[in-house]
Amino acid sequence: MRRRSAVAQASDIVMNEAVSKKEFSPDSPSRIEGDVESYVLGLGKAARKAARVLASADTDKKNAALEVIASRLLESADAINEANAVDMEAGRARNLDAALLDRLELTPARIQGMADGLRQIVALPDPIGEITDLQTRPSGIELGKMRMPLGVIGIIYESRPNVTADAAGLCLKSGNAVLLRGGSEALQSNLAIARCIRQGLLEVGLPAECVQLIETVDRSAVGAMLAMSQYIDVIIPRGGRGLIERVANESKVPVIKHLDGVCHVYIDKDADLEMATAIAFNAKTDRYGVCNAIETLLVHVDVAAELLPGLAQKYLQEGVELRVCERTQAIIGQASAATEEDWYAEYLAPILSIRIVDSIHQAIDHIAKYGSAHTESIVTADKATADRFLREVDSSSVMVNASTRFADGFEYGLGAEIGISTDRLHVRGPVGLEGLTNQKYVVLGSGQLR
Amino acid sequence: MRRRSAVAQASDIVMNEAVSKKEFSPDSPSRIEGDVESYVLGLGKAARKAARVLASADTDKKNAALEVIASRLLESADAINEANAVDMEAGRARNLDAALLDRLELTPARIQGMADGLRQIVALPDPIGEITDLQTRPSGIELGKMRMPLGVIGIIYESRPNVTADAAGLCLKSGNAVLLRGGSEALQSNLAIARCIRQGLLEVGLPAECVQLIETVDRSAVGAMLAMSQYIDVIIPRGGRGLIERVANESKVPVIKHLDGVCHVYIDKDADLEMATAIAFNAKTDRYGVCNAIETLLVHVDVAAELLPGLAQKYLQEGVELRVCERTQAIIGQASAATEEDWYAEYLAPILSIRIVDSIHQAIDHIAKYGSAHTESIVTADKATADRFLREVDSSSVMVNASTRFADGFEYGLGAEIGISTDRLHVRGPVGLEGLTNQKYVVLGSGQLR
Repeated sequence: MRRRSAVAQASDIVMNEAVSKKEFSPDSPSRIEGDVESYVLGLGKAARKAARVLASADTDKKNAALEVIASRLLESADAINEANAVDMEAGRARNLDAALLDRLELTPARIQGMADGLRQIVALPDPIGEITDLQTRPSGIELGKMRMPLGVIGIIYESRPNVTADAAGLCLKSGNAVLLRGGSEALQSNLAIARCIRQGLLEVGLPAECVQLIETVDRSAVGAMLAMSQYIDVIIPRGGRGLIERVANESKVPVIKHLDGVCHVYIDKDADLEMATAIAFNAKTDRYGVCNAIETLLVHVDVAAELLPGLAQKYLQEGVELRVCERTQAIIGQASAATEEDWYAEYLAPILSIRIVDSIHQAIDHIAKYGSAHTESIVTADKATADRFLREVDSSSVMVNASTRFADGFEYGLGAEIGISTDRLHVRGPVGLEGLTNQKYVVLGSGQLR
Repeated sequence: MRRRSAVAQASDIVMNEAVSKKEFSPDSPSRIEGDVESYVLGLGKAARKAARVLASADTDKKNAALEVIASRLLESADAINEANAVDMEAGRARNLDAALLDRLELTPARIQGMADGLRQIVALPDPIGEITDLQTRPSGIELGKMRMPLGVIGIIYESRPNVTADAAGLCLKSGNAVLLRGGSEALQSNLAIARCIRQGLLEVGLPAECVQLIETVDRSAVGAMLAMSQYIDVIIPRGGRGLIERVANESKVPVIKHLDGVCHVYIDKDADLEMATAIAFNAKTDRYGVCNAIETLLVHVDVAAELLPGLAQKYLQEGVELRVCERTQAIIGQASAATEEDWYAEYLAPILSIRIVDSIHQAIDHIAKYGSAHTESIVTADKATADRFLREVDSSSVMVNASTRFADGFEYGLGAEIGISTDRLHVRGPVGLEGLTNQKYVVLGSGQLR
């Protein structure tokens, strides 16, 4: 029903020449003519125009598009699998490593996952257009804030083709046009997914240019995106450190980025040691390759002798390598000495560094020096100590008596996340729909003058 | 009383070697040794350390510092005037133009104004540390957000030495350390003001490095700031277009900027024409040199013949030059034709361009193409039309039936503003204390694991 009514509204949409169906039809993806820079500029210009249409599309239309895209993905599963098989074969021929091939592979379950993800986004409230904080000022004007899309978002990512659907879904629901630049190793898979997205947009009467995939593997396309501040409002890189650093260094467009996840649990002298053991163990071992797993455990000297032997035993039984400070070594033995580099390291592996500290102050100092401002948790039964940790640790998520593994868009109720920001401006932590919006001021007057 | 209690708390503050009183005493400003880049890096490093202390300073201590600085400014009025006289004399010798000299001059009233401004900031609520949006998630964790300082702010400005006190006050209250780079023509004035700020900080037991003035006129200091993303979290440029564009183009540090104020009033076909005349007249003529004055008036064709003759007469009597579209010319005569450049122009002068449009849609398109996303206002009695304008015009302030001149930190109740953002990320419109903060997630658990 939803889809039908949205289709009926299609004629409301302003279709101008540059975003008409002629140029980008679902069946004939655009040919890349001329140099890469002009090609990317053309996409940017079209995205800016489409963004204006999308910004004023109503919730029903955006949801209808998401539903149609989900259906098209499921219907096109065979075509997507075939395209993915081409990428996989090329990847094997290029000797891509097993982890990369695993991320690249699209199984039927993963295609179903993309469709489910889009339908979950349908269920999320639309953040756009809401007016909040209304107040009457002494002048008589009513002042409020209205939430708006950022405009055009550029996403630069590697390997995982499901990002194509996830990112498109979040941008669409938040009213933003998006330019997607996936990894060259996933181009065929991404093209097949993008074709479903294009079909969904056109079917509900939205410009296909709301979601555009850069259809060249030429690396200079990334440089062109990063220079295009007139057409892209924010760049979100997703991938390894090399990619993110390149983007951050080169970009003329503002960047929302996730750099490192060097997360800490600090076990305070007033901790419940059973709880502390469980949290420290869970935060490391639940999953190793994730950014919200801890890399360093800090333990107050007063509880170290009681806590560490048992906890170290649990880690070692689980196959976690421990790299520890001298005082920890004196208590648990059988662990190598941590070097200065270890305190900075994001292992993303079954390795943990452990340091004994003399005070919460020392713990906070350690985190400020070596941490990446991602997620830190204190285990303590003392409220004043907890409050101090909450206030003085300046990370995107700061926790008391909980595993750092909760720093996640789904756990926080955002529904889905386009990434986790370790930046300090605009948005920190998991970035959901709201992180892809801004707020403008609205003023309702009745003839007020100054 | 406030000051006393804050001074008594001074011993709570962590003073480490790099931010001790030894290096920067109130009476002997730091000497610039070695190259400019190392000098600026040194300031940045000290600012980062001071920022951690300031971030956890309580409201009383920050307010006490603001009060002491205000007193020191008033007590030092003679010294500040003398320093300013040196700048003024050098400025006259360099043939600076009259407008620049006017901005440079510090009269007793302006010194009083700086002190008053700081005391107004004392009265504003402290945004830091507040936890909002608390909710219990299905996992049992309590999730909320806590407002935090951004960290270290870099401000690059021209001419007006009172920015030194205003900016320091806003940064201090919002818990941010600040690096100030004023114009070379105002160096002696800025040094005299900075000396008062340093005294105030030290007197309440805050590190003097919370507010540092770059004490060299070497222009490469600006480049060094823009490259110093490890020590500066955001750069705010204040000045002419040349300065702001240089900063935006060169900076590796995120920038909050105010570019142009090409503001519009659109008079709809359903406008009350008396109200429309008053708003259009006020929005242009209340002050000419301000960013929230209008540069272009858009008028619906249905009311143009009735409205424009009288309104044009008022403008011309006030000495406003009109540059108009052909249809306007046909109605009012006696006005030159607007060129394409006129629609883009920020006159900041008694000049106004006028265009007749056929629909609200055309008005919105005009604003999207030629405007600078600063402030636009519609005059209309039709609610649906007003709602459409509010939703579809994507400017930092969008108004109904009010003069654009209300787009201002004081009118919005922010108390003071460090600038007006025409950017799309982080903050839009007037930037007060809240714009200098971010929000981190806080999680309160009771042993939750994943």
